Amino acid sequence: MKKIYFDYAATAPTDPRVIEAMTPYFFEKFGNASSPHSIGRDAQKVLEESRETLARFIGAKAEEIIFNSGATEANNHVIFSLARRLKDKGNHIVVSAIEHHSVLAPIEHLAKEGFKITYLKVLGDGLVDPQEIKKAITDKTILIAVMHASNEIGTIQPIAEIGKIAKENNILFLTDTVQTVGHIPVNVGELGADFISLSAHKFYGPKGIGALYIRKGTKIDPYLVGGDQEKNQRAGTQNVAGAVGLAKAIELCQSQMNDEMSFQTKLRDRLLIEIPQRIGGVKINGHLTKRLPNNAHFSFEKVDGESLLLALDMNGICSSMGSACTAGAMAPSHVLKAIGLSDELALGSLRITIGRWTTDEQIDYLLTKLPETVKTLRI
Amino acid sequence: MKKIYFDYAATAPTDPRVIEAMTPYFFEKFGNASSPHSIGRDAQKVLEESRETLARFIGAKAEEIIFNSGATEANNHVIFSLARRLKDKGNHIVVSAIEHHSVLAPIEHLAKEGFKITYLKVLGDGLVDPQEIKKAITDKTILIAVMHASNEIGTIQPIAEIGKIAKENNILFLTDTVQTVGHIPVNVGELGADFISLSAHKFYGPKGIGALYIRKGTKIDPYLVGGDQEKNQRAGTQNVAGAVGLAKAIELCQSQMNDEMSFQTKLRDRLLIEIPQRIGGVKINGHLTKRLPNNAHFSFEKVDGESLLLALDMNGICSSMGSACTAGAMAPSHVLKAIGLSDELALGSLRITIGRWTTDEQIDYLLTKLPETVKTLRI
Repeated sequence: MKKIYFDYAATAPTDPRVIEAMTPYFFEKFGNASSPHSIGRDAQKVLEESRETLARFIGAKAEEIIFNSGATEANNHVIFSLARRLKDKGNHIVVSAIEHHSVLAPIEHLAKEGFKITYLKVLGDGLVDPQEIKKAITDKTILIAVMHASNEIGTIQPIAEIGKIAKENNILFLTDTVQTVGHIPVNVGELGADFISLSAHKFYGPKGIGALYIRKGTKIDPYLVGGDQEKNQRAGTQNVAGAVGLAKAIELCQSQMNDEMSFQTKLRDRLLIEIPQRIGGVKINGHLTKRLPNNAHFSFEKVDGESLLLALDMNGICSSMGSACTAGAMAPSHVLKAIGLSDELALGSLRITIGRWTTDEQIDYLLTKLPETVKTLRI
Repeated sequence: MKKIYFDYAATAPTDPRVIEAMTPYFFEKFGNASSPHSIGRDAQKVLEESRETLARFIGAKAEEIIFNSGATEANNHVIFSLARRLKDKGNHIVVSAIEHHSVLAPIEHLAKEGFKITYLKVLGDGLVDPQEIKKAITDKTILIAVMHASNEIGTIQPIAEIGKIAKENNILFLTDTVQTVGHIPVNVGELGADFISLSAHKFYGPKGIGALYIRKGTKIDPYLVGGDQEKNQRAGTQNVAGAVGLAKAIELCQSQMNDEMSFQTKLRDRLLIEIPQRIGGVKINGHLTKRLPNNAHFSFEKVDGESLLLALDMNGICSSMGSACTAGAMAPSHVLKAIGLSDELALGSLRITIGRWTTDEQIDYLLTKLPETVKTLRI
């Protein structure tokens, strides 16, 4: 059966143009960027060019970028390293309740080590209220972490406003941009973040490579040690082909961003408008307009989400309930609980995330199949 | 100019057959192995097959393997996680003085946190004396770390003997097998290690993927947290194409290991025999027979190693002094100091590491160019 992919937020296919760009860096130009000879220097050169490409598109300087294995590593790096470095300065962290687990889990570890955590409540549409951050800050606060956009419900946070508050209070600010880089404009200056984290595979690059932006002048220790790569911030042989792929992927995203945003917004809005027209007892989750162009998220009354996923899958439709990272665990999502959903609604949810290869016809098919499926499953 | 690569220990080209095996997993079969739909399950299936392949070739069970970004991450993971987990049990670590920095640097961090470290001296040929380990062990020892073979001088350690001592004393044992997996037989049962670390790019796989073997029943905490991937031992979207590449690479290595070992040993021995015949004032570093088939390492009296590298590079010969990971820092290598070399000899060193595409003709060329170059540079 021909499969239709509606889970771009979990991972995206690597764009064939990205694969083409990467391929020479496996065999012909395979050097270790730390090697002292010409093959090594060639690798280093292309690695630095890739860094400059990424930097340019997010409004950063190349020296502010370190390549790593992805956003999970980036988030672990920032949170664990900062906490250990600054523990004598303060032991308080402010974080939104709807962060990705790669932010929440390190923070929960720190809580066990004695850190005090303020989990910011969010509004029903998933928005963090910046005023709540102002209230939460103490003279012991060392870090604020609020994601740019929710991987589950797609809500885009007022990051620039939060960045301003962080700066005014001289507190470091991490925003996880894993769902936004390549999809909507991301400029570190405008966001006012000290750290941003990203993974190439979310924007049509390869898996296994990502980056951490560290604002110039910000002091942080490496998380992986044992080599002076990445300006001593991340030891380990650099993934040159991966970095080339990441750079090509961001370049492609930027060059077609306006078109992709408007096409995806159109498709997304068909879902947000037509699904409630065709199916009763449905709730749209997330903000209606401050929302990723590629995310639609629903809860269906009296429908078991896991059965819904399975039934859609049998019809060739690949979708999800929320984060792929916890797909194994069928507890209600912490994000859906945070926006006030009952367990029943949280467990009856469906995330449709679209991307570069989504077509109007695929949306038509979903809009035909989904109502039938919900009807069959509804208790 | 046609370049000749003699730096396989730093990194190897990805075998074209590996690239071919990986390629479908970028675009056509691109799923997130944690996704709950058929595209995700297909990704999970191939990921698990890759894990089984690796496990089979190192004598492990699939459930004992976690994929990660490479050996640096694996070494950091084991050392930091174990130390923090076991700090109430003991605060003593035994480590060889010639480990890779990705082992030494985490241990140096722990020393600052109050851990006691015994650095095992090595003999002139780079061998660790297992009796020294017996003497070093105390009731506070929580970890022994000795690499399988030196990345610099190629000496292969008596790991099975060390593993036996570790087991008898109920102490966990890490061996960094980054230079041996795929090159010489590596069997976790025979080695008696509780942890082994490896990177695919050292055995003709891609950069950015590696693995950590954790013996069944051994308790260790994850180092990257925030998702239940890799049996909760390593959070982050799994690099499926990378794992497929790693598995294909090890499969190829195993299928041609005997031939490659004997051909490389022959070429290596030409170097070990003929270089001292053609050049005076040269010392072979590392053990003559307990040695990686692909490693030859020399020190030249009254020659500046950096100038030698540069001059060889100008003649199209890509080689190194030692570890690529510290190639930027021209301090004498800690390994060469540990085997008793003077600073002068340590700084006058040359590592020639060969591999799958090395030919007799390339060795001929080196054997012609090297004597001329040393003669020109000698002060």
